[in-house]
Amino acid sequence: MRLTAEQIASFHEDGFLVLQDWFTPDEVDLLRTETYHEFGNDQPGRILEKNGAVRTVFAAHKSNDVFSRLTRLQKMAEPAAQLLGDEVYVHQFKINAKLGLDGDQWEWHQDYLYWLKEDAMPTPNVLSAVVFLNTVDDFNGPLLLIPGSQKMGTIDLDVEKKYQQLDVAESWKPTLTADLKYKISKRTLIRALENSRIVAAKGTPGFVVFFHGNTLHASAGNLSPVDRLSVFISYNTVANALQPIANPRPTFISERDFTPIAALPDDALLAPRNGHSSPQREQLASLAG
Amino acid sequence: MRLTAEQIASFHEDGFLVLQDWFTPDEVDLLRTETYHEFGNDQPGRILEKNGAVRTVFAAHKSNDVFSRLTRLQKMAEPAAQLLGDEVYVHQFKINAKLGLDGDQWEWHQDYLYWLKEDAMPTPNVLSAVVFLNTVDDFNGPLLLIPGSQKMGTIDLDVEKKYQQLDVAESWKPTLTADLKYKISKRTLIRALENSRIVAAKGTPGFVVFFHGNTLHASAGNLSPVDRLSVFISYNTVANALQPIANPRPTFISERDFTPIAALPDDALLAPRNGHSSPQREQLASLAG
Repeated sequence: MRLTAEQIASFHEDGFLVLQDWFTPDEVDLLRTETYHEFGNDQPGRILEKNGAVRTVFAAHKSNDVFSRLTRLQKMAEPAAQLLGDEVYVHQFKINAKLGLDGDQWEWHQDYLYWLKEDAMPTPNVLSAVVFLNTVDDFNGPLLLIPGSQKMGTIDLDVEKKYQQLDVAESWKPTLTADLKYKISKRTLIRALENSRIVAAKGTPGFVVFFHGNTLHASAGNLSPVDRLSVFISYNTVANALQPIANPRPTFISERDFTPIAALPDDALLAPRNGHSSPQREQLASLAG
Repeated sequence: MRLTAEQIASFHEDGFLVLQDWFTPDEVDLLRTETYHEFGNDQPGRILEKNGAVRTVFAAHKSNDVFSRLTRLQKMAEPAAQLLGDEVYVHQFKINAKLGLDGDQWEWHQDYLYWLKEDAMPTPNVLSAVVFLNTVDDFNGPLLLIPGSQKMGTIDLDVEKKYQQLDVAESWKPTLTADLKYKISKRTLIRALENSRIVAAKGTPGFVVFFHGNTLHASAGNLSPVDRLSVFISYNTVANALQPIANPRPTFISERDFTPIAALPDDALLAPRNGHSSPQREQLASLAG
């Protein structure tokens, strides 16, 4: 199998697993080229920062062959299946830009809270695999995680709201607004850090982080001139398929086709086959090589 | 003298100097108590974050005995005079809150640009001394500095504006807004980093950073639950006094009394004398001990 027993145990202990050098420089070049290509497309899945720079592009795997193949590579889908213990499909796909000087922060949150509240995903047995396309250091907004925070379970939002009201009442804050809809209170963050710490996921281009749906994570703004591009692939198990709801979110944000992935060989990103290639993409791949 | 020849040379080389353990835990306790007291005062010098939390309080040294004494301590005013080579006065005083989870970022800038453009300060021979009242690590928004960036001189804002227009024209940004009035372009930041790097000023409560008016600096948002309180005292030389202008900024932002500081002994923060004490403050000092 792809991951060792130690790596699997580490994921279940910490709520995340960092894999250095998971993609080659040629693969990273191709993914980076395709990423900037997607940023230039004015499409419904493209979300902007407050300052107008690109923040996120959703669902590029539905229209872009390279990203489609990326989600199906054995080295991505197999670890996801191993860590979740079941066949997987892609619940959500997004590219986060965090451009040099423009990339804003993401506050502390659990991904699963969104998928529970917005999409009726039954359990938190879901994870995200993030491919980082640049060197990530302390200054370009590394992904921050709290080891073991997934063991707190899914956070109760009614309690969080009460905590936040208390925090405001006890502080000098005339007003309070939350950027994120399902924001974690300061009290809960302090509790998560009582026997843990904040860890920054750093590495060279092509490293990958797998993290559990309940793992608390955040990232600071990018104060370096270096972009910090990352591709988030959220894998869910077929057994944990979304329940039917009245007004589901668009499928470019929340997939409702639960067909499990038919994995591709690891070299399929640069050497497409099985009808998943196109002449234009092959040319790009060859240029990137 | 207060600073060694090596420390002075280091300041002139890097544009900043970090002094660990410059204040005792008792002194830090007193400064922290007074800081939260000032945050609670709805005063003209109190500036809020976008989310409503306190961001900055200006000029507390004009009304608060403890902060008044702080600016005059020999261990603050003497190094300032040594590094600038002349008698000094306090040009600007502010407390930056950077509260846990609420403290927003500060973009890259040179302080002197503001004082040149807004206040008609003749030369960049000015510095700020920052007292940090908490442990500062990678996650609560450390002050970031670029060693040697002061040697670039004062940045030409007309050139910066052209660079920023070029950056926008060459990118996929539909719009662009700058939070800071005198924002540094990505091109200039890249140039500053060509033969340098970003350094984070970290330490335990009571450490101090002296930095030159032309040193490029910034800080990320505070993504930890720990506040990152800091007191900024900007010392200018009497020889570099502001020129008269038509509509000067209020004196709580930009001092126009250029009387040099009469320094107090280092123990004067906790043991006030010379008529600078008040019973209430002495009680606080004794409680803090």
